[in-house]
Amino acid sequence: MTGAEYNRSVNFGPPRSFWTVLKSKLKETLMPDDPFRQFRNDPLGRRIIKTIQYFVPIFEWLPQYKLGFLKYDLLAGITIASLAIPQGISYANLAKLPPVIGLYSSFVPPLVYAIFGSSKVLAVGPVAACSLLIAENIGEKASPTEEPYLYLSLVFTATLFSGLLQTLLGLLRLGILVDFLAHSTITGFMGGTALLIILQQMKGMLGLKHFTQKTGVANVLEVIIHYRNEWNWKCAVIGIIFLIFLLATRLVKKIKPKLFFVSAVAPMVVVVAGCLFAYFAHAERYGITVVGPLKKGINQITVNRLNFDPKYIMAPLKAGLITGVIALVEGIAIGRSFALATNQQIDGNKEMIAYGVMNILGSFTSCYLTTGPFSKTAVNYNAGCKTAMSNVVQAICMVLVLLFMAPLFSYTPQVALSAIIISAMLGLIKYKKYYHLYKTDKFDFIICMSAFVGVSFISMDMGLMISIGLALVRALLYMARPATCRLGNIPDSNLFRDMEQYPGAKGVSGFLVLQLGSPIYFANASYVKERIMRWVRDENDLANSSQNDIEYVLLDLAGVTAIDLTGVETFFEVRRTLEIKGIKMILINPRLEVMEKLIVTNFIDKIGKESVFLSTEDAIDACRFQLKSSKQQNEESLHGC
Amino acid sequence: MTGAEYNRSVNFGPPRSFWTVLKSKLKETLMPDDPFRQFRNDPLGRRIIKTIQYFVPIFEWLPQYKLGFLKYDLLAGITIASLAIPQGISYANLAKLPPVIGLYSSFVPPLVYAIFGSSKVLAVGPVAACSLLIAENIGEKASPTEEPYLYLSLVFTATLFSGLLQTLLGLLRLGILVDFLAHSTITGFMGGTALLIILQQMKGMLGLKHFTQKTGVANVLEVIIHYRNEWNWKCAVIGIIFLIFLLATRLVKKIKPKLFFVSAVAPMVVVVAGCLFAYFAHAERYGITVVGPLKKGINQITVNRLNFDPKYIMAPLKAGLITGVIALVEGIAIGRSFALATNQQIDGNKEMIAYGVMNILGSFTSCYLTTGPFSKTAVNYNAGCKTAMSNVVQAICMVLVLLFMAPLFSYTPQVALSAIIISAMLGLIKYKKYYHLYKTDKFDFIICMSAFVGVSFISMDMGLMISIGLALVRALLYMARPATCRLGNIPDSNLFRDMEQYPGAKGVSGFLVLQLGSPIYFANASYVKERIMRWVRDENDLANSSQNDIEYVLLDLAGVTAIDLTGVETFFEVRRTLEIKGIKMILINPRLEVMEKLIVTNFIDKIGKESVFLSTEDAIDACRFQLKSSKQQNEESLHGC
Repeated sequence: MTGAEYNRSVNFGPPRSFWTVLKSKLKETLMPDDPFRQFRNDPLGRRIIKTIQYFVPIFEWLPQYKLGFLKYDLLAGITIASLAIPQGISYANLAKLPPVIGLYSSFVPPLVYAIFGSSKVLAVGPVAACSLLIAENIGEKASPTEEPYLYLSLVFTATLFSGLLQTLLGLLRLGILVDFLAHSTITGFMGGTALLIILQQMKGMLGLKHFTQKTGVANVLEVIIHYRNEWNWKCAVIGIIFLIFLLATRLVKKIKPKLFFVSAVAPMVVVVAGCLFAYFAHAERYGITVVGPLKKGINQITVNRLNFDPKYIMAPLKAGLITGVIALVEGIAIGRSFALATNQQIDGNKEMIAYGVMNILGSFTSCYLTTGPFSKTAVNYNAGCKTAMSNVVQAICMVLVLLFMAPLFSYTPQVALSAIIISAMLGLIKYKKYYHLYKTDKFDFIICMSAFVGVSFISMDMGLMISIGLALVRALLYMARPATCRLGNIPDSNLFRDMEQYPGAKGVSGFLVLQLGSPIYFANASYVKERIMRWVRDENDLANSSQNDIEYVLLDLAGVTAIDLTGVETFFEVRRTLEIKGIKMILINPRLEVMEKLIVTNFIDKIGKESVFLSTEDAIDACRFQLKSSKQQNEESLHGC
Repeated sequence: MTGAEYNRSVNFGPPRSFWTVLKSKLKETLMPDDPFRQFRNDPLGRRIIKTIQYFVPIFEWLPQYKLGFLKYDLLAGITIASLAIPQGISYANLAKLPPVIGLYSSFVPPLVYAIFGSSKVLAVGPVAACSLLIAENIGEKASPTEEPYLYLSLVFTATLFSGLLQTLLGLLRLGILVDFLAHSTITGFMGGTALLIILQQMKGMLGLKHFTQKTGVANVLEVIIHYRNEWNWKCAVIGIIFLIFLLATRLVKKIKPKLFFVSAVAPMVVVVAGCLFAYFAHAERYGITVVGPLKKGINQITVNRLNFDPKYIMAPLKAGLITGVIALVEGIAIGRSFALATNQQIDGNKEMIAYGVMNILGSFTSCYLTTGPFSKTAVNYNAGCKTAMSNVVQAICMVLVLLFMAPLFSYTPQVALSAIIISAMLGLIKYKKYYHLYKTDKFDFIICMSAFVGVSFISMDMGLMISIGLALVRALLYMARPATCRLGNIPDSNLFRDMEQYPGAKGVSGFLVLQLGSPIYFANASYVKERIMRWVRDENDLANSSQNDIEYVLLDLAGVTAIDLTGVETFFEVRRTLEIKGIKMILINPRLEVMEKLIVTNFIDKIGKESVFLSTEDAIDACRFQLKSSKQQNEESLHGC
C-alpha cells in the first residue's frame, strides 16, 4: 500500500498555460474590482449605453434624478458653498495665491466632478496640505510676491501635471500605487502638515509684518520669537475670539450631531463678521491687515499661461506629481469611507480619471489643485445630499458670488482666515489615533510618527519619503521572515494547530509537522531553509534524550500562496539535507500556483507523488503504515534467516 | 447552544507582552540560525572557549587537526596556488592594476580567511566581476595609465571600504540584506559581466594598441571595428590555440571528473608556455605584448597610501560599497552551496565578518578586493581539501613565488591572459539556466535578462539596480495581491480545499468559505476587501437564480501570518458591509500574531468569540445548528400565535 492511495487524490493536473496565468494575474493586479462584470450577458446596444454610463456617471444618475432629491441637494450645495468661500480664500492664502483663485477653484472643478465622478457625497475643493506643498515647491523657483505672474503660471502648470498624472494612473488602472500609502503614513503626514500650517498662521494671528518662507517648525518658531516686538495684541485678541467661536461651534456639533450646520456655516459667519468689523472699525489703522482687492468676474482661460520653460519645469513637475498623488490618496480615502457609510461601491481607478480631468480642465481655467477635502465632504454628507447635484449647486453659488459679491470679501481680515485655518487644522492632529497606534502596533506608530516629525521638522517631502520607506521596509521584513510554526495534534480531533498558540496540542512522535506561510521566494528562501533545519535540530536535541528520532518532516504548505525558482531550489536543498540525516520530506496541501511550479521544476517527480498529501492526518496515517510494513518486512527477513 | 461550545476551545489568551514579541521578532530577523544555541547549558569556562572558537574558527579546527589531513590540504593548496598565479595576474589586469597586486592578493587574504573563516573548502582570491567594477568606478576619477599611484591608492581605499562594510553588516547581523539579491539577478549579472569581460579581452586577443575605457557592448564593438587595421593575426592565432587548449581541458574534466586537475593546472601551463614562447621567440618583435616588469618581494604595507581626500572619496566609497556587497553575495552563495555538498553549516553573518577583516587587512598590505571565487573553490573541493589549511598552503606557495620567481612571469604574453579570462568567463554565461528560467518562471527570466542586458548594454550599476528593482516590485506585487480562493468540501471528508484546484470540491449552500493568504496590511488591505466583496457578489449572482442566498462568509485565516492596523480596519469594514447585506462574518483559525492584533483592537469583542472557530467543519456545524434553532423558534412563535 503506497501513500498515493491514502491521499484522497491530490491534484497533480498539468499546469495552466502561461497566458491563462498571466491573464488572471493581470486581472487581479489591475482590475481587482472586476469593473466590466456588469456588462456581461447584455445585448450590444445596452452594453454601449452601460459603457458610456460607466465612464461618465452623470448619464447614469441624471436620468434617474427625482425632483424630491433637489430639496436636499440644494440645501447641501448652499451649505458647502458657504464653507467654500472662507476655505477657498484661506487655502489660496496658504498657497500664496491671490484669494480669488481659491474661489475660482470651487467653481469649475465641482462641475467637472459632477459629470465624471462616481461618489454621491464627495464635495470638491482645494485642500490645505497640498496648498502648502505647492507654495513650498513652486516658491523655490519663483517668489509669489516679487514675480506673482510667473508664480501663478507655474502653479497652473503644476495643476496640469497633477491632472495628467491622475488621469494616467487611472487609465493604466494603477490604483495599486495608492495602496502603498499606509494609513499610518497618511495620519502622520496630515498631523505634521497641520502643525506646520498652524505655525504659519501665527503670522496672521500675531499680525506680523515679517515672516519666513521656510516651513520647518524650528525655523518658524525662531522667526516668531525674533520679531516679538512686532506682535500685535489687538490682532491676537480678535483672532482668539474667532478661534474660540469656531471651536465652540464644533463642540456643539459634537454634542448634538444634528446641529452640524452650526459648525458648517461658522467659518462664513467669521468671514462676514470680520468684513463688517474691518469695514466699520477701519481695522487697517490698528495694524490688522485685510485680504485686499478681489475683482468681480468668473474664471479666465489660462491655457496660454501654462509655462513649460525648461528653466522652471522641474518645480511644477515635482510639485504636480507629489500633490497629485497626495490629493488622490486623500480624495479616494475620503470617498471610500463615505461610500462605506452610504453602502455604495467606489471604483478607485475611475475616481482617479475624474480627478485628473477635473484638474486638467481646472488648470485651463484659473484653478489650482482640487480634490475631495474631508471637511467639505462631511458637511455635504451631513446636510443630506443625495447626488453629485450638490456640487453643481455649489458651483452655481460660487458663480453668483464671483459675479456680484467678490469685492465685499476684500475686507476679510487675515486674522479671521488664520483662525479658520487653525480651527480646521486642530482637528487633523489626531492625538487619540496616535495613542491608539502606540497601544496596538508599535511599528505602525513609528511609521506614523516618522511622517509627523519628518514633515514638521525636516520637510514635507522628506517626512513623507521616510515614512513610506519605513512602511516598505516593514512590508519587506514581513516577507523576508515569514512566520513558521510547529503543529501539534489537538487531542480528540484530527486538527493540527500551532503548538505555541495551543499548548494542549501534542507532537506526534517521529514526525515534525511545520506550517510555512507567505510566498516563498528569493527574499526569504534561505531563511525558510535555516528555520526548517533549526526546527529539526531543536527537535532532535530533545529527541536524543528520549531516543526518539524524527523520521518525517511534514511541511504544511496551505499558507504558501506562491513560490519562485529560488524557493523551489530551497526545497531541493532542504530535501537533500534532510535525506543526508535520514529524514523524509512530505508536502501537505500545496496550493494551485505552488503545485504548478513544483511540477514544472520536476520537484514532484523528485520526491514522488506518494510524498504529497491533502491533509496532515492522511500523511501521518500513510507514513505510519509504511513504517510498520517496513518493520514487518525486516522482522520477516530476520525470521527467514 | 452557542458557537462557542463547538469551537474546541479557540485560544483567546491575552496577547504576549510587547517585549516578548519584539525579542522573538528581532531573533528571527537577525539570528534566524540561532548561533548561540550551542552555548546553552555549558559551564562558564567551556562557554568562554566556545565563544572564542565561535568567533575565531581556527581555534576550533587547528587543535583537532590530524596529520592525515595534511597530505590532502597540501595537494589542494598547491593546486589552487597554481591557479592563483594566472588568475591573479589576469584579474589585476582586468582591474587595470599592476600584475603583482594580483599575486599579493592571493597571499595575505587567504591567511586571514584561514583564521576567521568558517568554510572548510572556500579558496580565497580576487574575482573578475568585482575587478571590472573597480576599474569602471575608480577609472572615473583617476586614470590607471596617467596617474597610476593615485589610482592604486584609491583602489586600496575602496578595498578598505568594502572590508568595513562587510564587517559592519556581519556585526549588525544584516545578512538579511544579502537575501534580497535574487538568484535570477545574480545569474543575469554574472552572465552580463562575463560578456563584457570577454569583449574587453579582444584587446589582448587581437593585439590592439588602442582601446576604450568604456565597458558597454556597443562601445567596445565599435572600437574593435574602428581599429580593424591594427588587428594582429599572429596574436589572434596564438590566443585561439591557447583558448582551444583551455576549453579542451575543461571538456576532459566534464567527461572524466576525476581528471579535474588537468583543467585546474591548464591556466598555469598556458602561462608557462606563453612565457617560454615569448622569451625564446622574442614575441615582442611580432607585436605580441607581454605583462612587463614584475619585481621580487612580498607585499608592502600600504596603510599610509589610503586616500581620504574629499575630492576623490566618492569613487572609492561607491566602488567599495557595491563591490563589497557583490563579493559577499558571491562568496556566501558559493560557501553555502559547497557547505551543502559537505553537509556543513555556514553562518552567513560570521562569514561576512571574516571577509570584512580579510579585506581590511588586505587594504593595509597591497591587496585589492578578494572573496571566494567559484573556480578556485571548486578546484579546492575537487582536490580533496580537508580544512582551511589549504588556504595557508596557497599563501605559502605565493610567498615563494613572490620571493623567487616573480620576474619570470614578466614574460607572460597578454594574449595568454586574455585566453585564460575568456575561457573562465564562457562558463559564466549560463544559457541553459536562462532557458530553464524561461520555461519555468517568466518573471524570474525577465529579472535575470534585465540584469544581463542592463549590465552589458547600459552599465554594471544600472543593470544591477534595474534587476533588483524588478525583483522588489515582484515581491511587493506578491504582497499587494495575495491569492485568495474559494474553498469547497471534498466529498466524503471533512476537508475544505480550493474549488479551482479541486473541481470535485462542493460548495456548502448558504456558506461562502474563503481562504486568505499572506500578511494582510496596508498594501493589500483594500484589495482584500474588494476581493471578498467580489466573491460575495459573484456568489449572490449565481445564488439569485437558485434562490439560495449566502448567510455566512467564513474567512479561513490559517494562511494569514500577520496583520497590521490597516488590515484590522479592513476587517471592520468588511464586517460592516456584510452586515448591511445581512451576512454574518465568521473567522476560522487565526494564527497567534493575528489573534493578538484582533484582540487588542477589540475586533474579537465586536464580532463575538462565538464567531471564531478552530476549523471550517466546526464553524459550519455551529452555524447550521443556529440557523435551525432560529427557524424552529420562528415556527414556534408562529404556532404560538
